[in-house]
Amino acid sequence: MARKKPAKERRRSAGPLSELLRVPEGERVSLSSYDAGGTPGFPTGPPPLKVAGLAATALMGERLAGLQERLYAASTAGDRRRLLLVLQGMDTSGKGGTVKHVIGLFNPSGCRIKAFKAPTAEERNHPFLWRIMKVLPRPGEIGIFDRSQYEDVLIARVRELVPREEIGRRYGQINRFEKTLAEDGVTVVKVFLHLSYEEQRRRLLKRLDNPDKHWKFTTVDIDERALWPAYQEAYELALERCSTEAAPWFVVPADRKWYRNWAVSKLLLEHLEALDPRYLRADFDVAECRKRLLSR
Amino acid sequence: MARKKPAKERRRSAGPLSELLRVPEGERVSLSSYDAGGTPGFPTGPPPLKVAGLAATALMGERLAGLQERLYAASTAGDRRRLLLVLQGMDTSGKGGTVKHVIGLFNPSGCRIKAFKAPTAEERNHPFLWRIMKVLPRPGEIGIFDRSQYEDVLIARVRELVPREEIGRRYGQINRFEKTLAEDGVTVVKVFLHLSYEEQRRRLLKRLDNPDKHWKFTTVDIDERALWPAYQEAYELALERCSTEAAPWFVVPADRKWYRNWAVSKLLLEHLEALDPRYLRADFDVAECRKRLLSR
Repeated sequence: MARKKPAKERRRSAGPLSELLRVPEGERVSLSSYDAGGTPGFPTGPPPLKVAGLAATALMGERLAGLQERLYAASTAGDRRRLLLVLQGMDTSGKGGTVKHVIGLFNPSGCRIKAFKAPTAEERNHPFLWRIMKVLPRPGEIGIFDRSQYEDVLIARVRELVPREEIGRRYGQINRFEKTLAEDGVTVVKVFLHLSYEEQRRRLLKRLDNPDKHWKFTTVDIDERALWPAYQEAYELALERCSTEAAPWFVVPADRKWYRNWAVSKLLLEHLEALDPRYLRADFDVAECRKRLLSR
Repeated sequence: MARKKPAKERRRSAGPLSELLRVPEGERVSLSSYDAGGTPGFPTGPPPLKVAGLAATALMGERLAGLQERLYAASTAGDRRRLLLVLQGMDTSGKGGTVKHVIGLFNPSGCRIKAFKAPTAEERNHPFLWRIMKVLPRPGEIGIFDRSQYEDVLIARVRELVPREEIGRRYGQINRFEKTLAEDGVTVVKVFLHLSYEEQRRRLLKRLDNPDKHWKFTTVDIDERALWPAYQEAYELALERCSTEAAPWFVVPADRKWYRNWAVSKLLLEHLEALDPRYLRADFDVAECRKRLLSR
């Protein structure tokens, strides 16, 4: 999956895993060439890899929380930078589980989570980016999108909700939108959770076998599997047309949950470290404040 | 702190800890009679209590997550019920820490967190409840407010931001608002994190002693301590005028973080168990679905 990059592209890399999982700008994407069960970039070692993966992820927690706090602290002094994690993937690919994992790493008060559902009547009356703009992270925050503007070129394409020419224009609209975000200090990290057809079958069967999970299940989930190739094609187009310098796509193999959580954590870590937010120095007299606090 | 309740009040109790920490409707509140370092309702045992507290809290996690999922599942079938946790307390009382703790218990995708800051110009142009209404939890969700409508009778009273008569009217407006919420299926759990003056001093000194926490500190934090008695009085009034049948206040001693987390978890558990949300039975043929899933 790792490929040689021209010098210009290499510059944008936030770190080695970002480099490895990133979809190169302008390149054709064939998802069948990506192994959904793989663990790219994870250090090889004696099995079970899962145990090493869980430990490595846990060890990143403190650094991530520290970086988030610094990002937030910097925003109180006017730094507009923030991060937006966009999660896309087929049903059961683990978008919700990833949100839960990521929020557990951070202080939730500094996170802005949004799960996008089918657009409401009001949302459909506006341009498709309207509902996205309303919930962008504020300076210093970590935004997490469970689905996103990409639904409007994914399900909208597969289900033919709008004409094909309109879909074609949307890629450019998304790219321009994301470039503006980047210029405004938003680090956009777009993650495609790459699940295999077989693993989706296993996960749906597991839901069926547990009556407590039946509320999550509809027969539409099975009908949608007939559209799997159409969805893969729609994803391939979105990945190749919208992986830009300003906002690249990353393909994260998602058949193994431990790897998915490790990879997303690591991508966030690399991007936050590249931002390198700094604490402010005190603009008050610390000794004087101590004295005042102790005096009464 | 436990008091005899008339039969009518006892009916509303969600459970033994809710009963113990609840501010009885219409009763005078004197915060100095509440021990901020206490552990009311926590089973006595050999020290360290903290270890038993952390374990007891961890053990509640699975039940809480299960109840939240059932509440959410029920909402997909039209059940409008939801829970709103309101957190209030002095600076450093641990509102943010409690949010982090609570969100860790639940699936964050089903939570709606809102931290209220000083009102914006737009918010000030609307009635004070306007910004609250915009971010209420939807059916099936757990809402978490870090500060709330109560700021408008707390800092607004202490800092004399509006005339005293206007503050007087707001208690009634809040009560009517919360009654409407309750009638619409919102279980409102209002928690006052009760911190002692001494413990706040210790926490502020700790921030001063750690340069990485200086961004959280302003000399206003010290100035505000001079207003401590005025804030305590404002809280006493809010607690006694707004602890209603529809939306009671609970006083949670907050000097010990482990107790605070245990007590808030337990209050949530008691209220969610009282709601007793149920999973839907499948409206599809499970065997048939299995067959279809396995067929291709």
